[in-house]
Amino acid sequence: MSLFDESAAYFRDLQERILTAVEGLEGDATFLRDDWSRPVSEEPGALQGGGYTCVLQDGAVFERAGVNFSRVSGVFSEEFAASMPGEGLAFEATGISLVIHPVNPYVPTVHMNLRRLSRPSGGWFGGGADLTPYYLDEADVIHFHRTLKTACLTHAQVVDYPKVKQWCDDYFYLPHRKEHRGVGGVFFDHMSDRPAETFAFIRAAGEAFLAAYLPIVERNKDRPYGERERDWQLHRRGRYVEFNLIHDRGTTFGLKTGGRTESILVSMPPSVRWGYRHEPEPDTPEAALLEGLKPRDWAGEGAV
Amino acid sequence: MSLFDESAAYFRDLQERILTAVEGLEGDATFLRDDWSRPVSEEPGALQGGGYTCVLQDGAVFERAGVNFSRVSGVFSEEFAASMPGEGLAFEATGISLVIHPVNPYVPTVHMNLRRLSRPSGGWFGGGADLTPYYLDEADVIHFHRTLKTACLTHAQVVDYPKVKQWCDDYFYLPHRKEHRGVGGVFFDHMSDRPAETFAFIRAAGEAFLAAYLPIVERNKDRPYGERERDWQLHRRGRYVEFNLIHDRGTTFGLKTGGRTESILVSMPPSVRWGYRHEPEPDTPEAALLEGLKPRDWAGEGAV
Repeated sequence: MSLFDESAAYFRDLQERILTAVEGLEGDATFLRDDWSRPVSEEPGALQGGGYTCVLQDGAVFERAGVNFSRVSGVFSEEFAASMPGEGLAFEATGISLVIHPVNPYVPTVHMNLRRLSRPSGGWFGGGADLTPYYLDEADVIHFHRTLKTACLTHAQVVDYPKVKQWCDDYFYLPHRKEHRGVGGVFFDHMSDRPAETFAFIRAAGEAFLAAYLPIVERNKDRPYGERERDWQLHRRGRYVEFNLIHDRGTTFGLKTGGRTESILVSMPPSVRWGYRHEPEPDTPEAALLEGLKPRDWAGEGAV
Repeated sequence: MSLFDESAAYFRDLQERILTAVEGLEGDATFLRDDWSRPVSEEPGALQGGGYTCVLQDGAVFERAGVNFSRVSGVFSEEFAASMPGEGLAFEATGISLVIHPVNPYVPTVHMNLRRLSRPSGGWFGGGADLTPYYLDEADVIHFHRTLKTACLTHAQVVDYPKVKQWCDDYFYLPHRKEHRGVGGVFFDHMSDRPAETFAFIRAAGEAFLAAYLPIVERNKDRPYGERERDWQLHRRGRYVEFNLIHDRGTTFGLKTGGRTESILVSMPPSVRWGYRHEPEPDTPEAALLEGLKPRDWAGEGAV
């Protein structure tokens, strides 16, 4: 089996385990499992392949959880091809991508993505995971970062933790708001050296995801909240939309290469509000969140 | 007074009349009037100038009406400068820009923008107006288009109605949805010839706006509706957000040139929903809207 095939098989298997874990936290809500494949088209550049888009909506714990797997091949535009390493216009891509928007404003939104991209001249891995809280719980944020850091430190021959942590902070930033989207995590791309070791790291990152996120859900999903916290959550989700539609490379890559719109935009929050100059009062938990979005060394020094 | 100054004075005056008209349709809700100006900065490229952002929120008729006036000067990036006619990096811009999101799903959202942009090598006018219904009322759409068409036909020496109607259809299009944002209107840019006559057309378009839109509000604002219509409206507003953040040149121009984020994003709808594969059943009023978004010659042949 090629590394590409092995990667696709791992991503699909991981997806299944995540679906089970998410449903395990829910009551009756289950995933809609949408197996799609594209018609083989003669149009130049048309994507071939398919995917498995799974969406759980209006659950007791999760307002929307979108967990995508896809495996496609196609042809880049010249402009897009020039923005990436390697040669040639043909590509194959496979990946898992998820965004989970919980009901309770005390449970953070989470994003995770792992992918392999192949061009005739070679391939690479990329991905990341990041946390977007509505209220800052420092213990939760530390747990999330330490879990991801451990996965990196155990594969230090292929991944440099401070670099991928910083990359995440730099990437999930909204210049027009002068705000980070969330409290970060890890972000990496174009990992083409030592493919076998890198694939081992990718798998470690995939396994770390559930360990990093699920305990945060369990700890906070039943905390009482009111209209104030819900309103703040809906307004903060507006920032998530702004980031995804203006800046996110995965989203713009997908939409520009003719990806499946419904699968790409399943990352959108289910309900969102925008206000004019909607700013928190000083010395409130909402103001504390904005302060908490400034990058910090959450995992602390040394091995964890 | 220079044409730039005259344009700014007209846009500011038109804004005031629109504020009065909108408040006249409301009960107690009034505009928050936010007079802002930027600190004079020594930073190269920093915008100078100011604006007057007016926002009415949570009214009985309008969920949000954002009506901006601005007058700024700055320095384009090389890349941005190359995408426009003329020479040099310095620019001045003044304009009025509005987006109105009504409460009642039977009242369409409307957008209007008029602007003058000056570079050392010369200046031009641009702008447009377009209607985004949630439910299709053909008489309303015909009225909107005919009113704008009349403003164009009376200034036919500087504006070609079929061209600006088509430009609007082409511009307000979401390729990833294969859908037009609304039922169109007019759109024009880079109007640099015959400046005095063009300014007369710009004023005619400004005056036509209220005549085109207000009767539609009055006719529909008290129509009864339920959760089904509200839910459809909130989902359709998601398309509005997608267009503005992914495609709209005004929004990306503003955010990329360091514009005032809160003034630019006042165009966002106040509440929005996204669903997965949220599609109307066949033979419903919601399905009829999607059919109605396909461009037509709404104003009909000949003078109106």
